[in-house]
Amino acid sequence: MAEPLVLINAFEVPGDQAEQFIAAWEKTRDYLASQPGYVDAVLHQAVTPGADFQFVNIARWQTAEHFQAATQNPGFWESAAGLAGFRPHPGLYRVVRT
Amino acid sequence: MAEPLVLINAFEVPGDQAEQFIAAWEKTRDYLASQPGYVDAVLHQAVTPGADFQFVNIARWQTAEHFQAATQNPGFWESAAGLAGFRPHPGLYRVVRT
Repeated sequence: MAEPLVLINAFEVPGDQAEQFIAAWEKTRDYLASQPGYVDAVLHQAVTPGADFQFVNIARWQTAEHFQAATQNPGFWESAAGLAGFRPHPGLYRVVRT
Repeated sequence: MAEPLVLINAFEVPGDQAEQFIAAWEKTRDYLASQPGYVDAVLHQAVTPGADFQFVNIARWQTAEHFQAATQNPGFWESAAGLAGFRPHPGLYRVVRT
């Protein structure tokens, strides 16, 4: 079986909105975890002051098609409404070197 | 023992400079891998056109002090010279949710 695809999504989140962001991320994660092809998701928070992105979500999906299907339906948009105020920088990645 | 810290560094790399970037990353990785506190490093390349960051490096270090010591000496700057043309967005992170 092929390596899972890695979704890396860096979010611009003001320092004082961390709790609000985490709650919104959890709601979205709960929805996506119920979808076919979801593998796992890990939310990272910056410990260094001044990082461009206070949060980075790193999630694995079995294929790009699974991820696209999961994020292109009304259930996703409803679950992710709380993330709308935080600018995302998403991309699907594969591992090229270790 | 505490969870290792995670360095996440998203790089802005033009599409046609991927090979040059990977070679420069490998040289830097080889240097850092020889330093105390290094755990591992994984280079991710975007598979989606138009991602803001063609490459994202995700590396683990035992502590922030190890990482800072490794990147604050002349050997690091020499090894990383090839990365100078690619704008980085680094931060040290800890896992807050899974």
